[in-house]
This record gives sequence, structure tokens and C-alpha cells, in this order.
Amino acid sequence: MSPWQDATSIAAAVRAGEVTAVAVVAATLERIARHDPALGAFTALVSARAMARAEALDAARAAGEALGPLAGVPFAVKNLFDIAGLPTLAGSAINRARASAPRDATLIARLEAQGAILVGALNMGEYAYDFTGENAHDGPSRNPHDLARMTGGSSGGSGSAVAGGLVPIALGSDTNGSIRVPASLCGIFGLKPTYGRLSRAGSFPFVDSFDHLGPLARSVRDLALSYDAMQGPDAADPSCAPRAVEPSLPGLDGGIEGLRIARACGYFRQGLSPEAALATDAVAHALGVTAEIEIPEAARARAAAYLITTAEGGALHLDRLRRQAEEFDPDTRDRLIAGCMTPAPLVIKAQKFRRWYQQQVLRLFDKVDAIIAPATPTTAPLLGQKLFSIGGETLPVRANLGLFTQPISFIGLPVVAVPVPEMGGGPLPIGVQVIAAPWREDICLRIACHLERQGVARAPRPREMR
Amino acid sequence: MSPWQDATSIAAAVRAGEVTAVAVVAATLERIARHDPALGAFTALVSARAMARAEALDAARAAGEALGPLAGVPFAVKNLFDIAGLPTLAGSAINRARASAPRDATLIARLEAQGAILVGALNMGEYAYDFTGENAHDGPSRNPHDLARMTGGSSGGSGSAVAGGLVPIALGSDTNGSIRVPASLCGIFGLKPTYGRLSRAGSFPFVDSFDHLGPLARSVRDLALSYDAMQGPDAADPSCAPRAVEPSLPGLDGGIEGLRIARACGYFRQGLSPEAALATDAVAHALGVTAEIEIPEAARARAAAYLITTAEGGALHLDRLRRQAEEFDPDTRDRLIAGCMTPAPLVIKAQKFRRWYQQQVLRLFDKVDAIIAPATPTTAPLLGQKLFSIGGETLPVRANLGLFTQPISFIGLPVVAVPVPEMGGGPLPIGVQVIAAPWREDICLRIACHLERQGVARAPRPREMR
Repeated sequence: MSPWQDATSIAAAVRAGEVTAVAVVAATLERIARHDPALGAFTALVSARAMARAEALDAARAAGEALGPLAGVPFAVKNLFDIAGLPTLAGSAINRARASAPRDATLIARLEAQGAILVGALNMGEYAYDFTGENAHDGPSRNPHDLARMTGGSSGGSGSAVAGGLVPIALGSDTNGSIRVPASLCGIFGLKPTYGRLSRAGSFPFVDSFDHLGPLARSVRDLALSYDAMQGPDAADPSCAPRAVEPSLPGLDGGIEGLRIARACGYFRQGLSPEAALATDAVAHALGVTAEIEIPEAARARAAAYLITTAEGGALHLDRLRRQAEEFDPDTRDRLIAGCMTPAPLVIKAQKFRRWYQQQVLRLFDKVDAIIAPATPTTAPLLGQKLFSIGGETLPVRANLGLFTQPISFIGLPVVAVPVPEMGGGPLPIGVQVIAAPWREDICLRIACHLERQGVARAPRPREMR
Repeated sequence: MSPWQDATSIAAAVRAGEVTAVAVVAATLERIARHDPALGAFTALVSARAMARAEALDAARAAGEALGPLAGVPFAVKNLFDIAGLPTLAGSAINRARASAPRDATLIARLEAQGAILVGALNMGEYAYDFTGENAHDGPSRNPHDLARMTGGSSGGSGSAVAGGLVPIALGSDTNGSIRVPASLCGIFGLKPTYGRLSRAGSFPFVDSFDHLGPLARSVRDLALSYDAMQGPDAADPSCAPRAVEPSLPGLDGGIEGLRIARACGYFRQGLSPEAALATDAVAHALGVTAEIEIPEAARARAAAYLITTAEGGALHLDRLRRQAEEFDPDTRDRLIAGCMTPAPLVIKAQKFRRWYQQQVLRLFDKVDAIIAPATPTTAPLLGQKLFSIGGETLPVRANLGLFTQPISFIGLPVVAVPVPEMGGGPLPIGVQVIAAPWREDICLRIACHLERQGVARAPRPREMR
């Protein structure tokens, strides 16, 4: 089995009896053992559990039972998802003292209900307050395209594991860009669904009103397959909207005819590296997009997202900061303490602005069905790099990797980040966001699928890891 | 015409031609001219406008047109309601520089559409951040039962004008108790409706998520009459719920049979003056109430309401505080500056608690239809009084007049405050809250009507002003 097979083809092979689930899991664990010491993607493996499930799946097939659409597909989750029997770390040292989770997060249970097999938990930025994929306790996750470079965060392990061919599907979380940034820097596809679409039950929170969970994968069909498996309301998460499941796979190949697509101008065309500009150009060209659209007050939206993030993060961790400040990752601690000291009126004004901004942006979707924008301003910076130059300015890397993702998730819009390989002539990929109106993940996925078929969007295989 | 006639009987007399609207307005303006210098209830009169409307009403009657249910009824509004042609002061000096309001507030327009006649704007605590009825710019409004005493705030002018027989109906606003506190101290009825029930279009805000507008009156039928006239959705106020008008007058005399009523215990039985305890006893006795119910965590609810109030108030006035700090009422300024410096995580935790608390309290209404609680801990303090003794503790008057009202409005429940006269043997009345589930103003009003018929709740005539 090639480590580059996608979930769809693995499941087909398992269902057809061409390969056993045990063989798939064994190959996966072997590859993780070989490559993860360099990648730093995993923080825990559940090998025995995975093997037991694989055996059960093979036995079920032998007994003539029908297997699910994800039969035998290995996957892993950012370590803020509850895994029964493990403490939920959320990238922290502090949480190692937590009781083990009594049961799996809802999204794990849903993937496994369709035959997928959890193999482990993934590295992440502490408490998800991160865009780099670095972590003071577990070490950084590393970019498979250049081990000296960042994965992007906070779902850095998710990006590394999928891009490095360790698993075809990983779950991450995205508050201000934590799925889309590692998808961009690692060169894979990532879906941040509409706010309220996928259950967050059994996950460690960050900013309740714009935390999202979603999948990362190397193909659009895998993204759609796993997304479809996870949809549906969940009584355990009151913020998960009671909507019927709307499968995205059947319409995935529908093409883009009739879709009105525009490219975000203004804020989203400033501060781009040549690679980011070229990648967005390439996507726009492949879609025949010439129209531009202005997302109003995007810079203020980013500032407002920041304020709410830091203050809500501070509120969430206030007691831990009081009692265990020295146990935090120093970078995270400083940001959370700043959040604790933010005056309330600034946050209240940010929330007021947010309501206004959401109304303005929703109106844009009267005129267009999707908006194209860069996912990150640059390709992956070096690990430990503190500053970079964008738009002629020298700026902190950590905060500014989310320049283009923050103004979108803040109001809950669905986005697929698509990877565009080798734009600068070098080995590093970079992503482009495909943004739609709430609940229109189907549009994002159809456009991503079209780009993948045209060869413009593609998850490249890292040179060193083939 | 007696100044103690209620709105219902005035309208009946005007419709029957027993008195002209012009005569009603003239008598009203004459009484205001005579008594308002002592009461300090009004900050502006609209005499010419009122007379023009009265003339038009009389002409309409002469022409055989049907008059509305509030025909010829004079009323006045707290000066945070927009009145076309006047700047909306909201109790401040700063707002005197504002442009005149281009049109009347929705609730003024609705009362006038049924024949009522606006005669002026009423004194209030600056920017509604007040429980005393004092005001550094306009002087205090005075309690008609003892001119040396507070009206209670912030709708102090509304309490004074209605209790003093200047108008039968006044409108006020209530965020933490600003209708119920002056109703209690001035001995009149006050309705704080469900959050979202009455339009706030054309009013100066304070804390958006728990600002309410509502009427004060000397009889329950006047309260119901004016409330019915003001109901209905309003496109100009997005937070005004799109509900059908549910008239309360037809069922007002329905009695209390079948209603499950309980008295709030715990927090609501502590820190009461003898008058407050006796008044609540009297109401409970008249209703045959023996059951008690605990509103959980009411003290924390009050603290949370405080935090949100001060921070949202600070956010609302931040720019004015930066530019015009010296033009604020010094007491208001200090509270608002404190709000501006409140760390955001405290407010975020207060909002989180609020959602929990609301769920807990809503569940109580599975077991009861209404809850009885005191409206204020004491009868009216002296003007300028800074401290009082409640429950053996010496506490600031200003903050603690809202002890029993804050935990209720904070989650938007409808309340009628009913006046109980002369409980302590002296001339001062005190109020009791009748609290129901959201949208059940009808229950509050039915119970209040029952208490009024029994003679327990009654708006007493001030001795000096008969």
C-alpha cells in the first residue's frame, strides 16, 4: 500500500477485500514509527485500539457484513479532541494532570461509525492560541516539505501528518485560521465548515463563538467524504445547528458552471508574498474569475477577532494563569495575560462591530456565490523565525500568518483551503481560500474539486519523503 | 377634572364628550405649572404641540370620527425617548449639544395613534445609570409623598409625575430596576415587559441586551391599556420580537384561580426593611401564597448584572469620557470610568454565568406561573442620603436600591411592580414585584389587578398634594 493512497481508495480496497484493515493499520503505524521522529506530528498513538478495530473490521467483512464508506481508513486528531482513556492535552503541559477522557469526541465516533480507524493524537500549538505549529512542551511539528520550516498552526501536527503521508485524513480545529494556515503551509486541503455545522462535543475549547472543527486531507474527495461522515446535529453540543445532513459528495464533480465567483480585493491583495499572489492568480485564472469584490473593513475585522480571541482566551484560562502561570508555554502565557488585562469596553465594541460586519459580508453573497482569497501571506517560514517581511513591512510571523484567515472565521463562513504547489519555483506550497455563504460548504468543495481536476490545486508529495 | 382620574376614565369622558381634550390638557399643564417646581419631574414641556393635538382630537370628535382608547389622555416620557424637535438628553448635559430628534420614539407614536397626548419630557438619572432619581444637572426629582425624599431612579421623573398626579401615565426605561425602583418608592404601578417585547426605536440606550421600556401608572387598567397600545413588532428595532399583539386588557379581571404563585425565598428574604417584609407578606397573604421558591444564585446574578452594566455602559460612553469627562455628572462618570477599566474576562465570565442562570430560572416556571419578591429593600431614602442600614449592614444607598430588581431584568423576565401603601404606619409606600415567565405579562397584570381589587395594592395619594 502506498502511503499516498487517499482515504477513498483505501476504503474501496478494504471493502473489496484487496487489502485488510489490519494491513492498512500496520503499514500506517510502521510509517509513523519511521517518519514521526523527524516530523513531530504525533503526541500519542493508540496502536492497540487501532489494531483491535482493524481486526474487528476484517472479521466483519469475512462474516459478509457491509463495511462503511471509510472502511479501514486510518486517521488522527489534533490533541484537543477527547480520546477515551487519554487526557485531552490541547497542546499544554498543564492538561497532563487532567483525568482521562471518558469517551471519544463526537466527530471521532462518527468517523469510526463509518469504518475509519483512529491511530493517534496530534501535536498542536498550546491551547490552540498559535499560527506556527511550534510547542514548548512537545517540540514543533515540522513541515514535510522542509523539516527546518513551520507547519503553521495551531493544527500543525494535523498538517504534518497528512502532508507527510502518515495518515490520509486528520481532524483539526480552526478559530482564526488553525486549519487553513497549516493546510496552506503544508500543501494540503483543509475544510473549516460553517460555524455550528459540526459538533464540538468532546473537544477542548478556545473561543466558543468562533471555534470550528474540521478535516484536512490530500484530496478534495477525502475532504468531502470525511465531512459527510461527520455532519448532523448532536444533542451533546447545543451550538451544533439542528440541520439535516447535506451530503457533499454526490455534487462534488458538478463543475463551476453558473457559479458567480469573485476575487477579494483591497485588504486581501496587500501584504502578499510573490508566491501568495501567484497562487491566487493561478486559482482565479483556472476559474475564469475576473470580478473583484471588496470585503469591507477586513482590517478592523481582524483587529476585532484578535481582541475577542485574547479576552475570551484569557477568561477561559484565568484560573490556570493564577495558579499555574509557570507551566504555560511562555509565548502563550504572555498572550493570555494580555487578554486578561484587556479592558472590557474594547471587547464589547469589537463584538458590536462584529455584528455589523457580519451583516455587510452576508450581503456580498447576494452578488457572488464564492470568494477567492489567499490563505497565508507567505509560504512556510523557518522554525523559530520571529519576523518576516510582507508588503515592505517587517512584521511578527506568529500573528501575521493569520492575516487573511482571521477576518473570515470570525463570522463563521465555510472555507476550503486549496494547496497550490511550487508557485515560487521552490518546493514550498501555499494555499488559497475558497469562501462561501453560511451552510454552502458544497460550493467550496465543488470549486476545490474543479481546481484539483484542472491540476491547479494539488497536494504535492514532499521530495524527501517519497 | 380631578388630577387623580386615571387614563381609562379620562379617555371614556373625552370619547363621551363629557370633557374636551383641550380642557384635559389645559388642566394638566396648569397642574404641572403649579406643582412641578417642587417636584422637579419635568425637564421639558411640549405645550403647543399638546394643545394642537387636543384641538385636532376635539375637532375629530365634532366631525363624528371615532376616537381611540387613549383619547385625550396626557402622558409624559423619560427624557431618553426621542421627541421630534428636542435633543434627547438621557439625563445628561452633554446631550444638550445633540441635534434635535427628527421624529418621535416608536412608543410615543403608538400611544398618540390611540389618542394619547404627549405633554413633556421627564427628569432622570444621568444616562440611566442610577437608582436614586438624583441628577447633578437638572436637580433631583422629588418624591410626592415627602419632598425631602428620593423618587428612586433612574426613571425618577416618571415616578414623580405619575405619583404626584401630574399625568396618569408616564413611560420609563428599566435596565436593572429603573421602572420598578421609582414605582416602589413613589407608590405606583410599573411594568417592565419581557426583553424584546416593546420597541426601543428612538430611545437612548444604556445596556443593549437588557434595556427595556415600559409604562408607569396609578392603576393596573391604565398599565394594561398603555401596554396594549404599545405592543407589536417594529422594523426600526431589530431586537423587538416579531410577535402578534396579545392584548392584556380583556383578561385583566380574570382573577388568580389556577395560577401557581410562589414567594422568592433565600436571597429575596434577606436584607429587607420591616416595611419591605410586611408589604411582601401582605401581597403573599392576599394571594393565598404559602409556597416558597429559590431563585438560584441570585447574588451572583446581581454581581454579573453589575459587571455587564458597568462595562457595556463604559463601552457606550468611552469616546465621551475621553473627550468630555468633566461634563458628566461626577457620580456617573466615576462608575463609567470604572466600567472602562474592568478587565474583559470578568465580563465574559459574567455573560457565561448569565446564560446558565437564565436556563435555571426558566426551569422554575415549569413549577410556578408567577413569583412574588420585594421591589426595593426600603421605602424612599432622603435625598442626598449616601448610606442605609439593611439586614444589619450599612451599605451604599445608590447601588443597593436595586438589590431585588437586578437579578430579574438581567434575564429579561416580565415584572409588574405593585405599590403597597403605608406599611410602616408612615406615609411612604413600597413596592412588590410580580414576576412571570417570558411573554407572560398577562399573568403579572392579572395578579396585580387582583391585588388592586382586594385593596392590598393601591397607588396612594400624597398627603400634601391632594
